[in-house]
Amino acid sequence: MLSKNTVKFIKSLHQKKYRSEHGLFFVEGEKSVLELLSSDFKTENLFATADFLNKNQSFIPQSGLDITEVTQAQLESMGQYKSNDSALAVVRMKENRLLKPHPDQMILALDDVRDPGNLGTIIRIADWYGIRHILMSEQTAEFYNPKVIQSTMGSFTRIQFFYGNLSEVIQDWKLPVYGAFLDGENIHEMKEVKPGVILMGNESVGISFQLGRLVDRKVTIPAFGAAESLNVAIATAVICDNFKRLSQY
Amino acid sequence: MLSKNTVKFIKSLHQKKYRSEHGLFFVEGEKSVLELLSSDFKTENLFATADFLNKNQSFIPQSGLDITEVTQAQLESMGQYKSNDSALAVVRMKENRLLKPHPDQMILALDDVRDPGNLGTIIRIADWYGIRHILMSEQTAEFYNPKVIQSTMGSFTRIQFFYGNLSEVIQDWKLPVYGAFLDGENIHEMKEVKPGVILMGNESVGISFQLGRLVDRKVTIPAFGAAESLNVAIATAVICDNFKRLSQY
Repeated sequence: MLSKNTVKFIKSLHQKKYRSEHGLFFVEGEKSVLELLSSDFKTENLFATADFLNKNQSFIPQSGLDITEVTQAQLESMGQYKSNDSALAVVRMKENRLLKPHPDQMILALDDVRDPGNLGTIIRIADWYGIRHILMSEQTAEFYNPKVIQSTMGSFTRIQFFYGNLSEVIQDWKLPVYGAFLDGENIHEMKEVKPGVILMGNESVGISFQLGRLVDRKVTIPAFGAAESLNVAIATAVICDNFKRLSQY
Repeated sequence: MLSKNTVKFIKSLHQKKYRSEHGLFFVEGEKSVLELLSSDFKTENLFATADFLNKNQSFIPQSGLDITEVTQAQLESMGQYKSNDSALAVVRMKENRLLKPHPDQMILALDDVRDPGNLGTIIRIADWYGIRHILMSEQTAEFYNPKVIQSTMGSFTRIQFFYGNLSEVIQDWKLPVYGAFLDGENIHEMKEVKPGVILMGNESVGISFQLGRLVDRKVTIPAFGAAESLNVAIATAVICDNFKRLSQY
């Protein structure tokens, strides 16, 4: 049975204030919930239709998880999806832990990327290109924002992330820093890249002055037309793609 | 003076039905409106703040354009922007004309890309990479949708586009067709590309069977992680970037 209080509680998790207060967030939709259940996130409650529960029995843990069978209409009243005939999960946030990656790995660092859609898309791109670590400035969009979770398409389950002072972390790790600028080295003409940090700036103002000083190599995606800039998620994808090409082949 | 009827009329242009009926659409924000005024689109009405009109005198045509000075609040009541302290323009749609590009040029073809944000982002990407022609299936999002116009960041003014039967046009033009698939040739290992058509598929189902048969080379962005797919705008950017690299250097 789904109580009114439960619905009210889950709706409160649409707001950052209540997510932070409870240390909980929610995930919805079949693909995302299934990826969640096979991840190291701790799912506390699963609300799902009879269909979803039958079809995915083997993926649903038998203990440590509170399961409630609900209707599609109930799912839609709790979540943000217009249409959801599968499931919604309430999940515990992870501790904000800084893990130093293996020296062979590329790391993404986001300097105030504010738009949740951009952050979600960047997480999905990182997961495509095998980048497992994302560092984010405090002003970057919140990882647990429902729009971020939605646009990662399940990739949020495979990313190590840390919010904090990028400048301190970068200086401490002493890794090469590649920064995306409009006046850097043409990324198509680079011959090699070493593992390091790919730093992407804010949607309007780019990389801050303070972080810009820590950049070892400014890189630029060459333009052939008249557009003044690329969206930050698009630029992240193109840089990751070039870096992977340069480091693999 | 701004009449209630004018506001009502512009608000009606938020809907496709009325845009089609009148053959008009609207553009808002300083950058987009300025790019519009220097383009070959026919602007019929300009609603702008005194500030915008003073600052941009030299860019505003002296005839053939109906100019109304309005307040920021009035702009915001007419458009879709939460904040707009500059301008909003009412613009005549272009005729849907098929122009065959110069044989040296790359062409983008979109097979049912439904999301307006994706279409807008793809137009901006095309403009960055110097691609001037976009062919779109009838089911692709509407070019004049305010969300499309907004996400192009002014690039909509520099693109030749045509809505129609992609299959007929592609067969008629006899150009090489490159299609984005998950099981094609690794784009990082390609040695050269010839000018032709880059075909991108629908967000959920990819390239249709009918169009898939016209593809000469299936191309794939290599994956290094666990994400199952990339967003269609992201994939378009990565393919355009690789093709430009292969054809320029």
